[in-house]
Amino acid sequence: MDWKDASTVNCQVGVALDLLGEKWTLLIVRDALNGIRRFDEFRRHIGLSEAILSDRLQKLVEAGVLDQRSYKEEGRRERREYRLTARGRDLLPVIVALKQWSETHFPDPQGPVVEVRHRGCGGEVHVGLHC
Amino acid sequence: MDWKDASTVNCQVGVALDLLGEKWTLLIVRDALNGIRRFDEFRRHIGLSEAILSDRLQKLVEAGVLDQRSYKEEGRRERREYRLTARGRDLLPVIVALKQWSETHFPDPQGPVVEVRHRGCGGEVHVGLHC
Repeated sequence: MDWKDASTVNCQVGVALDLLGEKWTLLIVRDALNGIRRFDEFRRHIGLSEAILSDRLQKLVEAGVLDQRSYKEEGRRERREYRLTARGRDLLPVIVALKQWSETHFPDPQGPVVEVRHRGCGGEVHVGLHC
Repeated sequence: MDWKDASTVNCQVGVALDLLGEKWTLLIVRDALNGIRRFDEFRRHIGLSEAILSDRLQKLVEAGVLDQRSYKEEGRRERREYRLTARGRDLLPVIVALKQWSETHFPDPQGPVVEVRHRGCGGEVHVGLHC
């Protein structure tokens, strides 16, 4: 069947983008993959308003990408932190693919902000297609 | 350096999302990878308003992801078509990574709309991380 005539109502790329197809959402996932967990850390690091951050975090919790837990530091009120679930950690190839594409086609003269390295061998992690 | 304290002004994921971090833009790229070239075909297939489609196509042309060419069918006025550049074709791993994540975590009971197969061996194409 020709792609033009194929219904994309259930297209899996579309399904992914219904959740992720928005810049801030993928930047939250990027930060979570880099170990950010607390609301204030996300807000400061991404530079996002509280209302938008709160909405996007809630959507990611509802979608099972982030797990919401409570924590309490001595003398402070209870707060929430957000950790990636297995479903969330599986987004690493999407983030690495975006990073790799951008580094190839819009390289920063100062080099990459961060390199993703394999804990086992120390080699830089790339994304590739295989069959 | 801790990720929290790293400036992300030049983060390559952010650079990619400045252009791509919007659902419709990535759906246009998906359709282009599937051979869609003409304005009306994109509009009908994605179900997008002319104004938004026109804006997103223009952004992709300016970013060097799509090439804009004119074509003319006999007896009709000149029209434009859009073809992926090498930079645009390099987005295949991003689209396959999104598809694969969605198929794994939100599988469609009716199976995938489309399978991406390697022209050489006929095997289904997957995205993977390597170092």
